[in-house]
Order: sequence, then C-alpha cells, then structure tokens
Amino acid sequence: MHAEALMTTIPAPFQPTPRLLLGPGPSDAHPAVLRAMATPLLGHLDPQFLRVLDEVQAMLRAAFRTGNALTLPISATGMAGMETCLVNLLEPGDRAVVCAAGFFGQRLAEVAGRAGAQVTVLERPWGEVFDPGQVREALQKVRPRVLGIVQAETSTGAWRPLEGLGALCREHEALLVVDAVTALGSVPLPVDEWGIDAVYSCSQKGLGCPPGLAPVSLGARAVEAVERRKARVQSWYLDVTLLRRYFGQERAYHHTAPISMNYALREALALVVEEGLETRFERHALNGRALHAGLSAMGLTLLTDPKHRLPQLTCVKIPDGVDDLVVRRRLLRDWGIEVGGGLGPHKGQAWRIGLMGHGSRQSSVTLLLAALETCLRDLGVSLPAGEATRAAAAVYAEAAK
Amino acid sequence: MHAEALMTTIPAPFQPTPRLLLGPGPSDAHPAVLRAMATPLLGHLDPQFLRVLDEVQAMLRAAFRTGNALTLPISATGMAGMETCLVNLLEPGDRAVVCAAGFFGQRLAEVAGRAGAQVTVLERPWGEVFDPGQVREALQKVRPRVLGIVQAETSTGAWRPLEGLGALCREHEALLVVDAVTALGSVPLPVDEWGIDAVYSCSQKGLGCPPGLAPVSLGARAVEAVERRKARVQSWYLDVTLLRRYFGQERAYHHTAPISMNYALREALALVVEEGLETRFERHALNGRALHAGLSAMGLTLLTDPKHRLPQLTCVKIPDGVDDLVVRRRLLRDWGIEVGGGLGPHKGQAWRIGLMGHGSRQSSVTLLLAALETCLRDLGVSLPAGEATRAAAAVYAEAAK
Repeated sequence: MHAEALMTTIPAPFQPTPRLLLGPGPSDAHPAVLRAMATPLLGHLDPQFLRVLDEVQAMLRAAFRTGNALTLPISATGMAGMETCLVNLLEPGDRAVVCAAGFFGQRLAEVAGRAGAQVTVLERPWGEVFDPGQVREALQKVRPRVLGIVQAETSTGAWRPLEGLGALCREHEALLVVDAVTALGSVPLPVDEWGIDAVYSCSQKGLGCPPGLAPVSLGARAVEAVERRKARVQSWYLDVTLLRRYFGQERAYHHTAPISMNYALREALALVVEEGLETRFERHALNGRALHAGLSAMGLTLLTDPKHRLPQLTCVKIPDGVDDLVVRRRLLRDWGIEVGGGLGPHKGQAWRIGLMGHGSRQSSVTLLLAALETCLRDLGVSLPAGEATRAAAAVYAEAAK
Repeated sequence: MHAEALMTTIPAPFQPTPRLLLGPGPSDAHPAVLRAMATPLLGHLDPQFLRVLDEVQAMLRAAFRTGNALTLPISATGMAGMETCLVNLLEPGDRAVVCAAGFFGQRLAEVAGRAGAQVTVLERPWGEVFDPGQVREALQKVRPRVLGIVQAETSTGAWRPLEGLGALCREHEALLVVDAVTALGSVPLPVDEWGIDAVYSCSQKGLGCPPGLAPVSLGARAVEAVERRKARVQSWYLDVTLLRRYFGQERAYHHTAPISMNYALREALALVVEEGLETRFERHALNGRALHAGLSAMGLTLLTDPKHRLPQLTCVKIPDGVDDLVVRRRLLRDWGIEVGGGLGPHKGQAWRIGLMGHGSRQSSVTLLLAALETCLRDLGVSLPAGEATRAAAAVYAEAAK
C-alpha cells in the first residue's frame, strides 16, 4: 500500500484557537516554558544536555523538599511515574495496601495488581479522606510491603493529610508510596519531613510545563528494597537501577531522554524556584479560596468538605437540570475556557476546575466565574447577578490588606 | 529540608551552543518542527487536539505503509515502543525467538525476558545479517509466539533484509515483531506488504522530530493475540487495549498525552508526506552513498558489508592509534558536530555517523568529511588531502546527471 493511497493531503500548519486551561490538567504553560520547547536539540549525552539534567534533578529535589539522590524525571507522562514506583517496589506475590476514595486511588490498585501484588483496597466514599486509625489497622492486618495513597485526588479535589503516615509505615515495615500528580508545585509536599519513601508526579499541572515527563523520587528505604529484589523489575523502561546509571555520574546510555521536554521542565522549575515554594503555595491557596467563594456565592455546591478541599482542583456540582456538555462546550466556544468533566460516579454530575501552576491567577478566577455565571443564566438557572465575581474580589481585597 | 537549602541559584535561561547532530539520534529537527513545539497547549480531550491525534495516526499509517487501525504514538521514547510490542504480545511462559547481531537485538531479548517469555537468542557476529534458513530452523524447533528482529541495527549500521519473514512467521504461527527505531522515515518499511505483525519506532531519527514519542503499529493477527490473552498486560501504561480506547473513537481518558510532542510529530510527519516517501528514501540513500565514498576515500574502514549497509547510520572504524574521545570532543568543540561512539565491542573502536531525517543533506556530509579529515591530519594520521570531499562531490555530481 502506498503512502499516497493512505494520506494524500498534507495538513496545514497547526494554529489552534487559544485556550485558557482550567481543567484537571494540562494547565497553561508559562510563555517562557513554551519558548524553551523550541530550543534546538542536543544529543542525550552532550555535556550541555547533561548539565540540563543535573539542574532538573537539583530543582526537582527542591520542589519535593528532599535530599533523595534518586530523584529524576521519568521519560513518559505522570501515570508512568505511578507505574515506576509500583513495579520497582513490588515483586510478584508481595502484599500492598492502597487507599482509594477516588479514581486515581483505584488506578493505584489496578497498577499494583499488574505488578503482581496482592492488593488490599481500603475504600472510602469518593471525596473523603482516611483516618490514621483505619490505615494502622490495615497495616497491622495485612503487613504489606507498600502502602499507596493519593495526596491530591484529581477526581474529587480532596486533599489527604499525609502527616504521620511515614512513621506508621516505618513501624510496620511498609514503604509509603505517594501519588503527587496533582500536588507537586501547588501544595506543600515535604517528602523527607513526611517520611515518604517513593513519590511521583507529572510535569503538566502544578509545575506548569507541558505533559511528557513524570518526576519521581525514591528515598533510601525504597532504594534498598529495589536492591534486595529477587525478581528483575518487569519493566525495562522504568527500572530505576538502570535509569540511575544514566541520570547519575556514570552516564550509561539507557534510552534517549526527551530533550525538549527536559528543557521545558528546567525552565518551569526555574520559575518555581524563583517564585519560592511558600509564595507559590500561598498563591494557589489564595486563588483557590477566591474560586470557592465565588462558586459558593453563585449558589453552587462544592463536592469536597472545606477541611480538605484542594486549592488547585475544585470539584463543583452541576446544578440540577443543567447539561454538563452544553456548558463546557459553550465555555470553550465563547471564552476559550476548558474545564474538566466529572470522572466515575461524578460523570455528568460535576465539573472539575483546575487552578494550577501558571494558570493559578486572579484573571483566571475572575474570567471563569463571570463566564460560568453568564452561561448558567442563559440556561435559565436563577443566580444572584454578579455575586460570584464580587465574592472572589472580596477574597483578594482581604488578602491584599 | 527547605528548597532554599537545596537549590539557591536559579539557572540562567538556557541558550546552548548549537550542534549539528550526526550521531545515532536524536537527529536535528526541522525548524518548523521546533516551532510547532512552542504552540500553546490544548487539553488532551480538546476537539482541536483530537484532530491532531487523528492526523498523526493517519500520517503514521502512511509512513509505515499500513492500513493497521492500531497505529499510534506511545507517550514515551522508542524503547517504550519495544516494550509495548513485547508486553502486549507475550505472556509469562510464552516462547520467543530473537535475532541478535548487535546491541539492540540483545535488548529485544532482555525486554522479552522481562515480559516473562522464554527467549531463544539467535546470535550472529555484530554487524552481520541472518539468512532465512537459520530463522526457519529456529521457528521450526522453538515454535515461538513471537519472532523479534531489528531492521536497522543502530549499533552496527547493518540493514537486515525482512522480505519473506512475514510469510515464514505465518507458516509457523508466530508473530513478526520488527524494531524500526532507526528505519522509519529513512529506508523502505512497507509493513503490510512484508507481513509485519507489530512494529515500533521513535520520533527522533528518520522522522526528524524531538525524542519523546514511540510510534507503534499492530496488525490484525497481533491484535487478535492481545485479545486472546489469558493474563493482563503487565504494563498498564503500555496496554494497547486501553490505549486504543483513547486513540480510537471512544476517546476514553487513559493518560494525558504529551500535547507538544504530538504537535511536533504532526509537523514532522507532514514534512515526510510532503516530501514523499520514495523521494525521502532516495535522499537518504544518496547522502549515505556520498558519506561512504568520502570515508572510504579517506582510507577509513566501514564496519558493515556494503550489501547491507544502512545509508542513515554508518559505523566506521577508528584508525589505529587515534583516540575516540579526542576526536569526538574536537568535532564538538570546533565544528559543533556530534557523532556517536561505538557500543559494546565497538566501544572506542568505531564511530557511528547518522544522516537521518532533516540531518540527511549534502551540507552535513561535506562538513563532516572536511572536519574529520582536518581532525585526523592534526592528530598525525596520514591522509590523502581533500580526497574525502572530492569523492563525496563525485557521488552528488553523478546523481545530478
């Protein structure tokens, strides 16, 4: 079969209608990060590129607040970060306990199962959190090698408290694996202080970089566990004992690192370091508060308890009688705004609004609230006019005092 | 530990010294492809982005010369393409035969083993090819589920004839898996005509795109085999039965596709389609011939038999008494040229010169030959002055007739 028979037209240069990405990710990348993507390529063993990798690793350690030597960007997207942690730490027949109160907790269980583990799923209704007593009980009963938990559940907007889990895991000789896909760069994640043994994230949310890399960090206990394995790691591509020979001083060829993605991650992390983590977290917290105030003033229901509501990902109930897709399509068409739909039981029932990385700013909050209000009023929902943006403005005014 | 304690300096904007990438990959990306990388992001379910994916898939089918529905870019680099084919087609206990006469053949065997297969390695000295009789004998004896072979061995520059293997595999009820990492976009690869059941490649060689995606294509027999599996695919990230639900019409969320990388691949493939496959292969063949003529005229030894020498990747013996690294560092420092070092038994003994994608052009050949000649003469190697560029020029003149 000839190329010509299959594809006769050459697509025109791609110039998409710009979007404001306020879904669960990717978030908007800073213009400086996009510019970095267009930097001419270097070889993956070029000294100039190896310095890029060193800088990326150093800044990832800063972002994770860890001294872990084995901190590096996996050459794939966030879900490959999850798989990396699980296939390296679990051997066939190992036991794992996974806390699941949302879509990504369930996925942790699925991926742990494929790594050959016997998985005990600790379930809570979607959006809820786990109390330490329940986790302790499971650790005592199951005696797993790994405890897996999601810090920021992207499907529900719930923020799990992780303090104390590290000590609990040490007490029970388990390794604490944390999903920080939606956490890193948006909310505090002091990996060493919390005793997290392995953590993974993505590039395209709180770090404000395009998707394509999965930062991971493994602590000393996790590395020891990998070194004591009996079976080879089932994934060659994700085997950290091979990866660290390239990312460490040996520089042994493993795979060809995604050059441009690492340029972009370097630039995105430089912006994180320049802003400062505390300032960045405060910015996310403030914009989250303003959004929550605005949505509440509009009379909408936020699905997650205020005590553990994430600032960077908000799950809001769709008003009765309003069609999910009609609103999301209108937001996209008329304002270029993307928000996310609900996952699992929330499908068609909730929207997910992301304020992450570069996207977490006052202009995003104001525009989204104003656009959503217009949209809902046009659909006949009775709303107090202008209350949403007024409530958000009050939050900003209060913070500026 | 505080971010400040770990990383106090913000790296300066990255402006690397430009390179001419004439190693085994990545090759230089066309400026239009780099520009596409900086396009603002879209969501991975945005209709505009889904059209990008459709176009990428259609153009990949054209490049692979296949009608395979399951043709898509894996969201990771080339080696994950290898892992994708093997973990989907092999189940624990399955038998596999792998033809290995170089570094990447050995890697195929390693990855097949990690997928749980009992692997029979058919070995030949590095740089050689396999005769069909030898393969037939192995298929008869082992009766494997999978036969794995590398079309263009990046470690040696050897070009394996694949015609007839598809029929041989059908006869023995085996699936033919082809490594086309260094082949796609540079040399003919008519997947359907040759009866290839599964094939994988990368973005950063013959396609002239940055690294970060691994095009794969699975034919009907391969898809049937996946659907008949007893065990779940061990990798969740690479499970094609999940991936096709996102890449197909269902658009079910699996992972967040690397948006920018897909923009770039779309642009790179558009350049391939615009040039035409035959013209592109002729260009690669011509530049390869010119390089080979130039290197030979310089008195250097090419390590692979002319009958199966690749045009896009040339393995040349380092002259006696010449230090590998001294030359490669000088090429990089004085001319900005990257060539590759030898792998395995060729380490320190050979250079690998790539002329792939956008990098396969007369100016690359001329500059490399002139620079290498200068370099070697400076190191005291006795060379006929100017013969290399003269021999290459003669090849171009002959072709222009």
